[in-house]
Order: sequence, then structure tokens, then C-alpha cells
Amino acid sequence: MIGRLNHIAIAVPDLTAAAAKYRDLLGAHVGQPQALPEHGVTVVFIDTGNSKVELLEPLGEASPIAAFLDKNPSGGMHHICFEVPDILVAAARLVEVGARVLGDGTPRIGAHGKPVLFLHPKDFDGTLIELEEV
Amino acid sequence: MIGRLNHIAIAVPDLTAAAAKYRDLLGAHVGQPQALPEHGVTVVFIDTGNSKVELLEPLGEASPIAAFLDKNPSGGMHHICFEVPDILVAAARLVEVGARVLGDGTPRIGAHGKPVLFLHPKDFDGTLIELEEV
Repeated sequence: MIGRLNHIAIAVPDLTAAAAKYRDLLGAHVGQPQALPEHGVTVVFIDTGNSKVELLEPLGEASPIAAFLDKNPSGGMHHICFEVPDILVAAARLVEVGARVLGDGTPRIGAHGKPVLFLHPKDFDGTLIELEEV
Repeated sequence: MIGRLNHIAIAVPDLTAAAAKYRDLLGAHVGQPQALPEHGVTVVFIDTGNSKVELLEPLGEASPIAAFLDKNPSGGMHHICFEVPDILVAAARLVEVGARVLGDGTPRIGAHGKPVLFLHPKDFDGTLIELEEV
């Protein structure tokens, strides 16, 4: 079912500083910050050629990564995202086999404008998994 | 400097159970367990086409992931690995710009038989970064 590793997301307390480290220390291909107020984050993408790293900084009062950064003030790996060809087929299959889809179980439009869902980290060894229809 | 995202590594308390979840719930391409006693881990690779997920279970008394699993008993994302063309050039450049290479600063042979080094997670927003010469 799952296909390519679309991205690994890292929550950071200071996006400008984090992006500078990837660019200046690691010589990575670092994009420009994009504010996504409807998702409560500002993001910077790092293009690794085969995949992406997504740096996430909270934006606004109800950011979905605020609690994570409260627990991990220095930042840390937040989630991994796999591509699926059909998010509704994926959601139905996962519920059928007993995996928990976060929220109301319905895919929503993610930060890249495509349908996504998140799986409960307790079902996958403490790892928050995002599935994105691509 | 850094190139492709080679893999994202996830430490898990039970490798057989974790591999089964990726295979049976997510329909992923899951390989066979490989014991690497010289690295203190048993690994299972998941091939995502463009990259890999590496599931890690402690092996032996002095596993490098034992402390992580003590702190995170359910498991969790442990490190990300980027490819570099020349590990010695990478190490020299990183030390020059003030990043901390773990251990004695010298690349060693990693779990894939290639030279690797690890960077201090405090220099990269709580994320343990491995560089592998490919």
C-alpha cells in the first residue's frame, strides 16, 4: 500500500536558525519559509533529490506542533510521511485491520494541498505516520 | 554537501512485531531481519522505492540504542541518514564550521559496511544525523 517516503518532518523552535544550519553547515538545498496559517505552521523544505526534509515551526495560537515542542524544547523528529495512491482506500483498509486514524478518521487536506491522514503513534512504535495521496 | 536521504531509522522494542505492522497494516516492502552484533542491533529494512526505513532492535549487552529505548519504551524515530560523496571531506568541513562529530570525530564503518559519522543532536534541533559515504 505505502509507496515513496515523501518527507521526514522535524519540529524546530527557530525556523530561521534551523534552516541556516542545514544550508550553511550541511550544504543542503534549503527552500524559502512558507507560512501556512490554516495548518498552524511555517515550513521550510529541504530537497534531498530523492525525498524531502520538512522543518516545522509553530504559527499562531493553536499550532498542532506546540505540545510537541513543549515536551521537546530543542525540537526533534516529529513525523514521517509515506505516499499512497488513494487515501480513501488506505483509510478504509487501515480501519479494517485495526489501526487508528487520528481525528474523525476522515482524510483532510494537508500542508501540500493534498489529502492526508495521520496514524496513531501508539500503533507504530512511537512514530507518527502521515499518509499523503500523491 | 549532503545528498540523498538514505534512510530514517526507528528504534523499536520488538522487531518482529514492528516489521509485521509495516508489512500487514501498511503493505510495505519489508526485508528479512539482519543481526549485526558488531553494531549492537538487529535491523529490518523497508524499501520505499526512493529511500528506506530502518527498524532497529537492540542486540547484546551494549547496544547503542538501549538508552534511547529506556527513555522511549514504545520506540520512536532515532536518526536520519544523509549520503555524502566523501566522509573525510564532510567531517573536516563540519569540524571547521563548529559542528560536533560524535565519538572521536573519526568516521567509522557503519551498519551498511560504509564509512559513517554521527552529528551531535544538540547542533541540529534534537535530531541525530548520520552521514554515510555512498
